[in-house]
Amino acid sequence: MASPLKIQPPVLKNYVRDLFQARGVSAEDAATIADVLIWANLRGVDSHGIARVPRYLELLGTGEANPTPEIVVHAEKSALGVVDADRAPGPVALTLAADEAIARAREFGVGWVSVRRTVHTGAIGYYTNRIAEAGLVGVGMVAGMPNMAYEGAQGASVATSPLAIAVPGTGKFPTVMLDMATAVIALGKIAQFKKAGKELPEGAAIAADGTPTTDPNVAKIPLPVGGAKGSGMSLMFELLTSVLVGEPILPGFHSGGPEGRKHRQNASLIAIDPSAASSLGQFPQDVDATIEAIKGLPVADGYERVILPGQRGAETYEQRSKDGIPVAEGLWSQLTAAAEEYGVDSPLVSAQ
Amino acid sequence: MASPLKIQPPVLKNYVRDLFQARGVSAEDAATIADVLIWANLRGVDSHGIARVPRYLELLGTGEANPTPEIVVHAEKSALGVVDADRAPGPVALTLAADEAIARAREFGVGWVSVRRTVHTGAIGYYTNRIAEAGLVGVGMVAGMPNMAYEGAQGASVATSPLAIAVPGTGKFPTVMLDMATAVIALGKIAQFKKAGKELPEGAAIAADGTPTTDPNVAKIPLPVGGAKGSGMSLMFELLTSVLVGEPILPGFHSGGPEGRKHRQNASLIAIDPSAASSLGQFPQDVDATIEAIKGLPVADGYERVILPGQRGAETYEQRSKDGIPVAEGLWSQLTAAAEEYGVDSPLVSAQ
Repeated sequence: MASPLKIQPPVLKNYVRDLFQARGVSAEDAATIADVLIWANLRGVDSHGIARVPRYLELLGTGEANPTPEIVVHAEKSALGVVDADRAPGPVALTLAADEAIARAREFGVGWVSVRRTVHTGAIGYYTNRIAEAGLVGVGMVAGMPNMAYEGAQGASVATSPLAIAVPGTGKFPTVMLDMATAVIALGKIAQFKKAGKELPEGAAIAADGTPTTDPNVAKIPLPVGGAKGSGMSLMFELLTSVLVGEPILPGFHSGGPEGRKHRQNASLIAIDPSAASSLGQFPQDVDATIEAIKGLPVADGYERVILPGQRGAETYEQRSKDGIPVAEGLWSQLTAAAEEYGVDSPLVSAQ
Repeated sequence: MASPLKIQPPVLKNYVRDLFQARGVSAEDAATIADVLIWANLRGVDSHGIARVPRYLELLGTGEANPTPEIVVHAEKSALGVVDADRAPGPVALTLAADEAIARAREFGVGWVSVRRTVHTGAIGYYTNRIAEAGLVGVGMVAGMPNMAYEGAQGASVATSPLAIAVPGTGKFPTVMLDMATAVIALGKIAQFKKAGKELPEGAAIAADGTPTTDPNVAKIPLPVGGAKGSGMSLMFELLTSVLVGEPILPGFHSGGPEGRKHRQNASLIAIDPSAASSLGQFPQDVDATIEAIKGLPVADGYERVILPGQRGAETYEQRSKDGIPVAEGLWSQLTAAAEEYGVDSPLVSAQ
């Protein structure tokens, strides 16, 4: 193909849903997973989009992910809840957790819902965005398997655990949304540099033996952003998620047993109701005024414009909603193979 | 003096308390302010310790800080509260907010308490540590006057707004506590490099005209840690504090009016009750096991040991509790001048 394959979002979403459904996931949960993955593609975060489908299917195959989980919500104290995911795919468990956080925030002003025993969460920004769409402030963090350096230590020691924060305004501007890894560069981005044959920026990653490198073929371990700050945040997110829900990852992982190295993730989602903090109802307007203050800043040399967190993702979302989602040929072949295996029709039969 | 002046913490604490009391602050509030400032010195964060006393006294003098505030606690929904500080000095307002957050977390599992209309908060770590001492997880963030660069914009655009997170273990190790600015380097640290005649690290700060510099005499604006990540976090903390409580700082500041440039800060403190998330009661043990996993990591080349967030501060705390707090001569002269003005006895009459 001369130009990359592009597929309309609804078509791709149905295809992904069908694949998961064929793998034993309920229609509703399969649609949720598809929604979360396609959202990431629409936002331009292809590393967290349908590129994950083969791995998700694999996790379902090995039993690390559970297609028919019995999810239980614990809430011993009312504003704080715990979703016991029973190894549900992350999108299923975290969408439920986001809705739980929203309900609690509406009642108590703030809702903190942590998720235990899930697998890969997808883009955490999806859930904070969901909370923002309900008119609340959303905060989210995830902890997973160690793949990043810890300041002063050798090897992959903590995870590139992300932090996401989404804040609703009046709707005049796209939702301000920060969605950042605690690493200088995510593993998925290193792969993109490798594919493009480009050098990594200095100070972004190290080789397996700890040597600093800008060669994406050699780079194995991303470095934490700001050294001790990034690795400190990652450790704290592990304490605020995994350890909070009684599922610590680091002791088991670093003791070296096979059980400790099994893929798993934990997360915390927080919703805050701005109307509980101020009865004036000025919050959305004040958010917009703050956005305008940032947009109005003089542009620094070497930059074309001053942008808000999440603005580029929102622009890509709009563009890809019209133009379709680009799908790499290799990934398409993998999906096609899975579709054949599970007897799912490929959308391209009719789309081509 | 050959060696720097060192003063025993209780002596210094009483002196600082007396200074604030002489300036019209109640005995109780003056003791709270002294407690917060001396804690920072004990932890080795001298930029947030008694070095702030002259500025705090000045703010009380100009009326920007209120020595006799009428603090009101609003709580329209139970887990989320707002402390309207009436321009109380930060330590007074935030200590109250921390205790409010603790009480709400004990009742609802999580307590989120935001503070509006305060002035300089002191070291945010103090309050998260206070929450951790109550057996709860503490999270805190502050927003203040723009003094840091925003990725892609010219000039001081957002604040070096800090994030602090403190997590209690069993007591076997010092409390794990991250307390980080969103800047590569805090303004107070630039001043320390200047005094020591040392070059700044590359990429830490820019001159007033935006030129990158390592000369601490020329450096005026710290850069955000990780570029868009640091400035994005700072903006988000402004939205989660100032805008949440109806006191946005950025629109007024950047519109350039004198009112918008008046010193003020807002903050949010969050307490989370681990016993509400898991009835197993394993949290403190799991925190310790995680600390041990980090301590046990192999040390990277060029490092002597692997340390936890807050560990160095805890070590300094122990040392200075015994040896006394070093006080620079210039600062001591300022305090002595203030003491003479307000008729407060200097402790050195008896200490020398």
